[in-house]
Amino acid sequence: MAFEPQDLAFEKRVRASFARQPMMETIGARLERVAPGEVDIRVPFRAALSQHHGFLHAGAVTTAVDTACGYAALTLMPAGAGVLSIEFKVNLLAPAKGEAIVARGRVVKPGRTITVCTGDVFAVESGEEKLVATMTATMMTVEGRPGIVD
Amino acid sequence: MAFEPQDLAFEKRVRASFARQPMMETIGARLERVAPGEVDIRVPFRAALSQHHGFLHAGAVTTAVDTACGYAALTLMPAGAGVLSIEFKVNLLAPAKGEAIVARGRVVKPGRTITVCTGDVFAVESGEEKLVATMTATMMTVEGRPGIVD
Amino acid sequence: MAFEPQDLAFEKRVRASFARQPMMETIGARLERVAPGEVDIRVPFRAALSQHHGFLHAGAVTTAVDTACGYAALTLMPAGAGVLSIEFKVNLLAPAKGEAIVARGRVVKPGRTITVCTGDVFAVESGEEKLVATMTATMMTVEGRPGIVD
Amino acid sequence: MAFEPQDLAFEKRVRASFARQPMMETIGARLERVAPGEVDIRVPFRAALSQHHGFLHAGAVTTAVDTACGYAALTLMPAGAGVLSIEFKVNLLAPAKGEAIVARGRVVKPGRTITVCTGDVFAVESGEEKLVATMTATMMTVEGRPGIVD
Repeated sequence: MAFEPQDLAFEKRVRASFARQPMMETIGARLERVAPGEVDIRVPFRAALSQHHGFLHAGAVTTAVDTACGYAALTLMPAGAGVLSIEFKVNLLAPAKGEAIVARGRVVKPGRTITVCTGDVFAVESGEEKLVATMTATMMTVEGRPGIVD
Repeated sequence: MAFEPQDLAFEKRVRASFARQPMMETIGARLERVAPGEVDIRVPFRAALSQHHGFLHAGAVTTAVDTACGYAALTLMPAGAGVLSIEFKVNLLAPAKGEAIVARGRVVKPGRTITVCTGDVFAVESGEEKLVATMTATMMTVEGRPGIVD
Repeated sequence: MAFEPQDLAFEKRVRASFARQPMMETIGARLERVAPGEVDIRVPFRAALSQHHGFLHAGAVTTAVDTACGYAALTLMPAGAGVLSIEFKVNLLAPAKGEAIVARGRVVKPGRTITVCTGDVFAVESGEEKLVATMTATMMTVEGRPGIVD
Repeated sequence: MAFEPQDLAFEKRVRASFARQPMMETIGARLERVAPGEVDIRVPFRAALSQHHGFLHAGAVTTAVDTACGYAALTLMPAGAGVLSIEFKVNLLAPAKGEAIVARGRVVKPGRTITVCTGDVFAVESGEEKLVATMTATMMTVEGRPGIVD
């Protein structure tokens, strides 16, 4: 599905917003692809993000894919709006191990108030990608609320 | 509801497992209450965990409450078993701001293979608690899989 | 938590709306308790609603509890508004068997646009209630959209 | 993704199990495509399944797509096993109106115990399909439990 962004500066806006999130630096996340309705985020594996079996913690996986979904939604929102996650669900399909994970957030249904996204997370190991988690998320467009601008 | 733990050393086991999770140290999480079917985790606010509006990132909130739910389930599992999150859903109810969050994981329905938990996350501000997120999670008992012991 | 309804005729409104839903008659649902933020719906067991193992179909369970959650949210909405389910998640905890199920929808967090509810479904057998399913749901207040009034 | 069924009689098994579900007849559901990891179910619109705005009730939509996901999982299970829904989440994207809905259940990740599926529901109106709901579901393989065979 092809989406028309309302704000042609959507990529610049997403990248600037991402850079203002300390949590992204804490987990070492990198913003890769930014397209209308599509955002990819990569998190290289680091021991500090692992759980006790040595895999990436589900919380780190969720942080990446929630952020990818939120920014995917933001690419389609008007200038001056902010995005908030209302809810998300994650199914964990396989251990997140390897060199990195890539979280791909995609808009399924944009709306004036509510935007629904899906996000798939792939573990990258020896150049191969394997699906390790999948999210569905509900994002909300926030307008006119002080402090909530992206 | 009162639950009978199968492994009387459940608290020691949960605390030892928690201590082996680097991600818990990365977010500064502290394991508080450990009781049969109940685990509380506290995460003091720190800027490194925030998103761009200054609130605790939903990913940090999720990391805490997924861990609380997982360990709540583990308190009721037999010795030698491991716990894996199969899926969880989080509804974000209010911005997570204040001095700290407390995530309270509770077992709703224990089972031999599948244990269902709920988790509530409260933001603590000036000594008052406010509900900011709620999770339902499905946890799986893993037995006899090398490397998956808690 | 005690909620203040904005529309004092909330109960009359909920009961009238319920009576206009053909699906409620199809599954034989009865509207029981209607209080601010709280709605209970009972569905007596009937073979026509069962799946192939003889239990009530998860779809019938979901129909009851989604409706209970939606009306629980509606009790707190202003007159003239309509309610729409945005999303829900159901964990099925035990087979739904017995004489009836009772679905109890409760508002967790009301809001101007978004209201979050939980719903518990109990199977009633020989006078005893057993928890068989639990839902979290996101409901939306709809105002000024033709045809969407409750 | 191509899946290898363990039971070559999977289609016959799914169709026989579907025929034993009274709830399917109650909502007028028809089993269409049955392929390894893929099941489609069609429900022609009927007033008895509608809610008060005239759309198909979310409960009817969920009944169809939960069943499609469950049978999609069953196509990959060994002979003699039964399938149970552990949990599902539905995002409702648009009103379900038109001549019929088609629910397409697809296996995302099969497993010995746990199989994760997604399901998309399309409303068919004047020959055009429109996505109206999307589900992620966790299905469980049940073996050796009396009465739970599909």
